[in-house]
Amino acid sequence: MQGVNNNNILWHKGKINKSQRWIMNKHKSALIWFTGLPGSGKSTLSTELEYRLYNMNIRTYILDGDNIRHGLNKDLNFSPEDRRENLRRVGEVAKLFVDAGILTIAAFASPYLEDRKMVRNLFCDGEFIEVYVKCPLEICEQRDPKGLYKKARNGQIKGLTGLSAPYEPPVNPEIIVETDKMDVNESIRIILDYLDRNNVFKI
Amino acid sequence: MQGVNNNNILWHKGKINKSQRWIMNKHKSALIWFTGLPGSGKSTLSTELEYRLYNMNIRTYILDGDNIRHGLNKDLNFSPEDRRENLRRVGEVAKLFVDAGILTIAAFASPYLEDRKMVRNLFCDGEFIEVYVKCPLEICEQRDPKGLYKKARNGQIKGLTGLSAPYEPPVNPEIIVETDKMDVNESIRIILDYLDRNNVFKI
Repeated sequence: MQGVNNNNILWHKGKINKSQRWIMNKHKSALIWFTGLPGSGKSTLSTELEYRLYNMNIRTYILDGDNIRHGLNKDLNFSPEDRRENLRRVGEVAKLFVDAGILTIAAFASPYLEDRKMVRNLFCDGEFIEVYVKCPLEICEQRDPKGLYKKARNGQIKGLTGLSAPYEPPVNPEIIVETDKMDVNESIRIILDYLDRNNVFKI
Repeated sequence: MQGVNNNNILWHKGKINKSQRWIMNKHKSALIWFTGLPGSGKSTLSTELEYRLYNMNIRTYILDGDNIRHGLNKDLNFSPEDRRENLRRVGEVAKLFVDAGILTIAAFASPYLEDRKMVRNLFCDGEFIEVYVKCPLEICEQRDPKGLYKKARNGQIKGLTGLSAPYEPPVNPEIIVETDKMDVNESIRIILDYLDRNNVFKI
């Protein structure tokens, strides 16, 4: 790691790599990708998961519509092309976070198989953990935490995922949680068990 | 932090905030922004700074052309508009990293005052630390680590910053390092002293 050191010829050490960050943090990094209908519970599970991981001394960060659509992706709208570009950029940013050693959490409806595959393909095997937040449309609409279904029924929103725009369920996700059948604790337990079994909490 | 917990009404804890991450990491986060001519030493200083910080148990991440232009910003070219959009996205991503508790390092020529101001304005007071990597053009061209000056002289590159495109030096940067007059160790010492004096290494 030593180099020549004078005014003209400068040191050029390699950058610190992901494995070295894992060692410092005493845990691994990966991308936990929540997909599901609006109202299925993605945001709830993300924030609860982050809270639980924080208390386990695990470094996390949530990427979601709130911090992405208002900043990085504020130039994008909801056309199919812009939705895809939205997820492409989220995937690329998530890749940087995972490289930085952070157990990254993404919560996006991400209704298209093809778009989720595009994100998965950015990662090494085992680093992209797809969590299908499964819940019947009727229950999601009853919950309607952001009033989106109401607005869609009133014609104020066009193309709401699940109602008037398609949602393509994952074919072979790493994890499925059924939020109409289990409470938050049970869903979180399933996710934490998966991470533990896959040695994310040790290096 | 307790919430109601049944199948319909879900918990909704707040997210973990930046201060809580600082406590876990035992250091603060900020954005260290290297600006300067091609060949001035931005990359060298970035990688050496990261190496030194790693050995101080500080969490860092470098954003630079290598990991940004080939991923997140691979849709952008080098037109003035795309250069600005490149830095806008870098600024927004850096903001997420700082929010995640990472002492973030950015190394971009970033020749325009206005563009650097746009990035600075995304951050709270004290969180954007501009480092002017000052070095005469002649010395940068002698070093020419990427062969850019040679290519520009041969007409293979148009609009090279410093040679055939403007570089607007910072008016009031937090830190100046003069890489023609001091070696890497001395530059790094100045930067680490600044961070120490501004209490980045304690919480």
